Amino acid sequence: MHITVLAGGVGAARFLRGLKAAAPGDEITVIGNTGDDITLFGLRVCPDLDTVMYTLGGGINEDQGWGRADETFTVRTELAAYGAAPDWFTLGDRDFATHIVRSQLLGAGQPLSAVTEVLCHRWQPGVRLLPMSDDAVETHVVLSSEQTVVHFQEWWVRMHAQTPAARIIAMGADTARPAPGVLEAIGDADVVLFPPSNPVVSIGTILSVPGIRQAVAEKTVVGVSPIIGGAPVRGMADACLATIGVQTSAAAVASHYGADLLDGWLVDDQDKDSAEELTRSGIAVRAMPLLMRDLPATSAIASAALDLARELA
Amino acid sequence: MHITVLAGGVGAARFLRGLKAAAPGDEITVIGNTGDDITLFGLRVCPDLDTVMYTLGGGINEDQGWGRADETFTVRTELAAYGAAPDWFTLGDRDFATHIVRSQLLGAGQPLSAVTEVLCHRWQPGVRLLPMSDDAVETHVVLSSEQTVVHFQEWWVRMHAQTPAARIIAMGADTARPAPGVLEAIGDADVVLFPPSNPVVSIGTILSVPGIRQAVAEKTVVGVSPIIGGAPVRGMADACLATIGVQTSAAAVASHYGADLLDGWLVDDQDKDSAEELTRSGIAVRAMPLLMRDLPATSAIASAALDLARELA
Repeated sequence: MHITVLAGGVGAARFLRGLKAAAPGDEITVIGNTGDDITLFGLRVCPDLDTVMYTLGGGINEDQGWGRADETFTVRTELAAYGAAPDWFTLGDRDFATHIVRSQLLGAGQPLSAVTEVLCHRWQPGVRLLPMSDDAVETHVVLSSEQTVVHFQEWWVRMHAQTPAARIIAMGADTARPAPGVLEAIGDADVVLFPPSNPVVSIGTILSVPGIRQAVAEKTVVGVSPIIGGAPVRGMADACLATIGVQTSAAAVASHYGADLLDGWLVDDQDKDSAEELTRSGIAVRAMPLLMRDLPATSAIASAALDLARELA
Repeated sequence: MHITVLAGGVGAARFLRGLKAAAPGDEITVIGNTGDDITLFGLRVCPDLDTVMYTLGGGINEDQGWGRADETFTVRTELAAYGAAPDWFTLGDRDFATHIVRSQLLGAGQPLSAVTEVLCHRWQPGVRLLPMSDDAVETHVVLSSEQTVVHFQEWWVRMHAQTPAARIIAMGADTARPAPGVLEAIGDADVVLFPPSNPVVSIGTILSVPGIRQAVAEKTVVGVSPIIGGAPVRGMADACLATIGVQTSAAAVASHYGADLLDGWLVDDQDKDSAEELTRSGIAVRAMPLLMRDLPATSAIASAALDLARELA
C-alpha cells in the first residue's frame, strides 16, 4: 500500500513512528511542513522536517520531542557572547551541524528537496521525506494589538502564542510550487493521512500550497484529531484555531477541513459525542484512545486510521 | 607613537602580545593577512584574523597557538556523520560560532572590515585589527607534480606542505583594494613592523594587494626574522621560500623583502654573521635572542624593533 502523510513536527513524528510499526511493508511518503522554517544566524532551520527526520532516525531528544538527544550548547553560548540575535530560539551543537550542512547545500544552489534527501541519507528514517515545497514559505503572524507582523517562530517560541493574533499568513505560499514528487506521492497514494498535527500552521500550511489541496481532495483521506476533550494534546493549536475562528474541538477541526477533503476522522473516546453530526456531514468518525503514550498505543491509532481508510476506499 | 603591523597568524599574534606590553601607550593597528581565508561548510573562515583576535583577546588555545581554549568538537563530529567535506580542517564548536556570526554578517552584505570590528567588539584585542582587503583574496598552490591547483589551506593543512609546489598564487590579489583604513594606517604610522610571520603567504600576500607595498615602502620599516639558524621558528615557511626560490635564512628573507622596503631587520644571535652584508645592502641589522619563549622575551624583541625604528627614522 502507498501511504502519504502530511506532517507537522512532534505530533506527526510520533504518529509516523506508530505508522511504521503498523504498516511495516508499506511505502510511506511524508510531505513535511516548511512554513515553520526560519533563517537564524544565516543558517536555514527546518524544524518540522528535522523533527520527523531525527525522530524516525533515532536521533531525537525523546523528552522534549524536538532537537537532538545528548545535546550540548557551546555554539549557542558563544553566539550569545557575540550578541548575535535572536536569543529566544534554542539550537544545540548537534542540531547546528544539520543546519550548517543544509545551508551549505542550499547556498550551492541545491533545492530543499534534494538537501533533505542528503540529510536523510544519514538518518535513514524509513520513509520518503519531502518538503511540501522547494520555494520558501514562511508563516507569519499579524499581532492583534500592535498591528505588527512577526515570524511564526517568534510568536510561537518567544511569545508562547500568548499574544493575540489577528491573522496567520503563510507568506510565499500563493506562489509556491509543490516540491518534485509531492503531487505524484499524493496521486499514487492509496490513502492520505493527517496525523494529529496543528490543523492551521502545519497541515493547513501544506494544504495552502497551490495544487496540494486539490490533489488530496481526490483521495481517501483519514485524519487523527489533534484535539482531545477540547484541548490540544500538545502545543498551542488552540491559539491558532482561535485566530482563524475555529473552536478547539475535535469536531470543529474536522468541519474546518471539510467533508470535501476529509473522509474519515479518528477522535478520542471522550469526543465521540460529535460522531453523529460529523457523519451526517459526510465524515466517518471512529472513537478510540488517541493519546500516543507509547509505541503500541501509537501503532494502534495508526492501524485504526488505515482500517478506516480501507473501509472508506 | 603610531605603530602599524602587517600580520600573519600565530607568530604575529604572539609578537603583538609582546608589542602591546612593550608599547602600552602607543596606538597599534594590525593589517591582517586574509589570503589564508577559506569557505568551509559554507562558512567564511579567516584563520589569521581570528588567531590575532583570540590571542590578544584571551581566547586562544595557548598550546597549539590557534583555535579556542577549552574547545569541543561536537559540530565537527556531526558534520562528519553527514559526510560533509572536508575532514582535514579542524574547527571547534567555539570557533564555529565565530564563523557563523561572520558569515551571517557577510551574507547580509557587510564588508569583512566591518564584520571584523563587530567580532573584535567582543574580544577587545587592544589593537585596531583590519583585514588587508574586503575583497576576497585566496592563496592557491600549483602543485609541481600534478599540475593541479589547491587552496593554500589544503596544501598547508592536509598535505603539510610536503607536496612540492611550483607556484604560490594570491588569487584575486591583483584586483583587490586595501580595506578602508589600511592605507591611512600605513600613511599615519611612525613605524611599520613585520612580525616573524611567513614572508611569502602572510606578509608577502598583504604586500601583494595593490597600493600596500608602495605605501609601506615610504615608511620606516623594521622586520623580525621568522628564520632562526636556517629554519623557520614555527610553521613551514621553508616550503614556501623554496617555492619562490629564496633560501631559508634570515639574510635571504631580508634580501627578498629588499632594501627599498625594509630599513631594519632583527635576526637571532646565531644569524649575526649575515649582518655585514645586509648592512651594505642598506638594511640595518641587529642581533638578539629571537625565540618568543614567553611574554618578557617577546616584549624585549618588540622593544628592540621599536628602538631600531626610532634610530632609523
